[in-house]
Amino acid sequence: MNIRQMAMKAKTVSPQLAAVNGEQKNEALAAIAEALVRHQDEILAANQADLRSAEHDNLPAPLLKRLKFDPAKIQEAIEGLKSLQQLPNPVGTVLSGMELDKGLELFKVSCPIGVVGVIFESRPDALVQISSLCLKSGNAVLLKGGTEASRTNKVLAKLIDRATCKAGIPEGWIGLLETRADVQEMLKQDSFIDLIIPRGSNAFVGYIMDHSRIPVLGHADGICHVYVDKYADLSMAEKITLDSKCQYVAVCNAAETLLVHQDVAGAFLPKMKAVFDAHQVEQRGCERTRDIVDVLPAVKADWRTEYLDTIISIKIVDSLAQAIEHINRYGSGHTDAIVTRDAGRAETFMNRVDSADVFLNCSTRFSDGYRFGLGAEVGISTNKIHARGPVGMEGLMIYQWRLMGNGHVVSDYSGPRAKLFTHRPLKLSSPS
Amino acid sequence: MNIRQMAMKAKTVSPQLAAVNGEQKNEALAAIAEALVRHQDEILAANQADLRSAEHDNLPAPLLKRLKFDPAKIQEAIEGLKSLQQLPNPVGTVLSGMELDKGLELFKVSCPIGVVGVIFESRPDALVQISSLCLKSGNAVLLKGGTEASRTNKVLAKLIDRATCKAGIPEGWIGLLETRADVQEMLKQDSFIDLIIPRGSNAFVGYIMDHSRIPVLGHADGICHVYVDKYADLSMAEKITLDSKCQYVAVCNAAETLLVHQDVAGAFLPKMKAVFDAHQVEQRGCERTRDIVDVLPAVKADWRTEYLDTIISIKIVDSLAQAIEHINRYGSGHTDAIVTRDAGRAETFMNRVDSADVFLNCSTRFSDGYRFGLGAEVGISTNKIHARGPVGMEGLMIYQWRLMGNGHVVSDYSGPRAKLFTHRPLKLSSPS
Repeated sequence: MNIRQMAMKAKTVSPQLAAVNGEQKNEALAAIAEALVRHQDEILAANQADLRSAEHDNLPAPLLKRLKFDPAKIQEAIEGLKSLQQLPNPVGTVLSGMELDKGLELFKVSCPIGVVGVIFESRPDALVQISSLCLKSGNAVLLKGGTEASRTNKVLAKLIDRATCKAGIPEGWIGLLETRADVQEMLKQDSFIDLIIPRGSNAFVGYIMDHSRIPVLGHADGICHVYVDKYADLSMAEKITLDSKCQYVAVCNAAETLLVHQDVAGAFLPKMKAVFDAHQVEQRGCERTRDIVDVLPAVKADWRTEYLDTIISIKIVDSLAQAIEHINRYGSGHTDAIVTRDAGRAETFMNRVDSADVFLNCSTRFSDGYRFGLGAEVGISTNKIHARGPVGMEGLMIYQWRLMGNGHVVSDYSGPRAKLFTHRPLKLSSPS
Repeated sequence: MNIRQMAMKAKTVSPQLAAVNGEQKNEALAAIAEALVRHQDEILAANQADLRSAEHDNLPAPLLKRLKFDPAKIQEAIEGLKSLQQLPNPVGTVLSGMELDKGLELFKVSCPIGVVGVIFESRPDALVQISSLCLKSGNAVLLKGGTEASRTNKVLAKLIDRATCKAGIPEGWIGLLETRADVQEMLKQDSFIDLIIPRGSNAFVGYIMDHSRIPVLGHADGICHVYVDKYADLSMAEKITLDSKCQYVAVCNAAETLLVHQDVAGAFLPKMKAVFDAHQVEQRGCERTRDIVDVLPAVKADWRTEYLDTIISIKIVDSLAQAIEHINRYGSGHTDAIVTRDAGRAETFMNRVDSADVFLNCSTRFSDGYRFGLGAEVGISTNKIHARGPVGMEGLMIYQWRLMGNGHVVSDYSGPRAKLFTHRPLKLSSPS
């Protein structure tokens, strides 16, 4: 089966999958867990082969660690499947109801998006997590994991496919892509795929946004700011700036630029420099910053750079307004934080910074589905439509309008003797 | 100012516009109404010139009627502005709240999308309606109306721009495009425009979807079905089929294909044919249909054709499942109706038909923002993300995550002595 056929098949079965009830989906999730236990040896053997080949290719240690799928991680995946079973079925929730006229009732009902394509990093646990999230939300899914994990992913996808089909989920709801050429092919299937969720490298996400008509949920850049206001608690600002930059540098929600109000720059920057120096952070400052502390010069390109490294750019601003303007101009609409004791200025910042996540007096690193309490995270979105910021299962849902009549026709509501609509909101109760 | 500059300006002012409070937006809406009254003569003169030139170009009567902007229509536009003032400010609503830990509280807050590009038909009242909806929802907007209405639109856009700026709305929030070349240019401004809403001809919507990286909210086709089930009340089915096809043929929610269960085809089709004949509807049937009634033959292309005319294609299906399959294969995901007395079969139909609107025992023509009680309609969407079916002001909104801490950093929540998140849902109250 080629990718086009795989996508077509997924599209064809997606309405059946959407109609599977919550109980049956939970049974399928339990069947996946059971398969992971029963076929643990096969999974571990495939993962060993992936690891050997990655070591042979001199993959860096952190990547090897993520690639590894050992009994402990399998157990974690099983826990994840169990907690997913505890969640209510997100399909079929009545979101609103309105009587249009006597006996003519309109309901807005949650439903899956349909077919989702997910491209993810070399973590085999991600395959289990994403496919189970899609199953629970009633979405068919095409998966492409990191090439380094290909043997493990192949075994996992096969086990999930078999286990779920035995549990009555329509065959073809899950498909595994194996090569980059497969991904190219997938990007063309806009007749069959409703949404692409790319995780992983930013350049790659940008490429996908440029090369597909399918809507993309994700973020190309994470240029996050910490703004230290003139009313900031400076020792809090130090702590937050350090955490935002250094707690984990290689991620999209790490800070790349520090903005400092001119009134506190003299007091704050020398202390902050000492902290950064102690953590081996390379600092690149604007001219005014360099009048205060001895750091490297920042050039204009720095304001637009996502370092993903122990580097930070620093700029002194005249005012809150200038900080906001800088963020809206150079940021990527991901996560931006203000440190201030002034609630009014915090509100202005939040009202005017056009980013998915705006934070007060805390680290940009909190921008994460798990920390937000969303359960499993589908991805982080800098889109301006559908879903923004950390996206949980809700991002895989949409709705359908259901109108229940009893012979109602529009011609009765037009012309000189037109009937009037009542448009009376209905109390909600699930139809299923 | 060229289109790129216009879009850039709109993007720049959009965070300010997003932060304007509800009272001030209402004052600006009132100022628009006042300007329409005060400058009525100027508007009427421009509209007369548009009408003269349209008559000269032999525009059909229905189009002339839509183009006309007379004192009665101006009064209607003013009423629309008044009712918009009555609506609550949709910006800043707290949609959910969660305590992540003591003193660390997360809120999901509604906000405008940002900058919207709307392309609409030759109705000057549409310009007033769309721009006022955008203003109320805090979105900057670039507008392109039908060329026939260009003089009227120019006057209206100028009046709205002036009136709102005087009322304190940031200058540049509204821009008027005048030519098709302007539209081409707008489609390229994906750095500044967040959403395109094209109304009007289907070919045009398809063109836009193909030629822009900006997300598009709309529908290219409206291939709507009426399925007459074996448990249908046949006289109800007759009435609904007639209304769905004939109440207004030139619109996207009119039915194009009639599906009939084989068990009732013999009883239903001869009666339906008589009704269609009486209404001069051309009928194109599958072979089995033609065994029962004398109609033209349907070819495969008919199942994919949006006639927008007094033509209908008719197919006999073996089962409910076959009807669903036909709709999912050939339909456009717009609006599909089932006529049946069997609630279980209706539910199966609604669960499995992958369309924005699924209707039971009523006409497809109800698929409309006004009839749905959504207030003004932004458009009808066959997208699978963000907004589906008739879209009201809600479709112009998205949300932002706001996290309020007190020095919280992620490093405290990791490692061997990690603090735990509480993830306790908060009672909602608006922060503003």
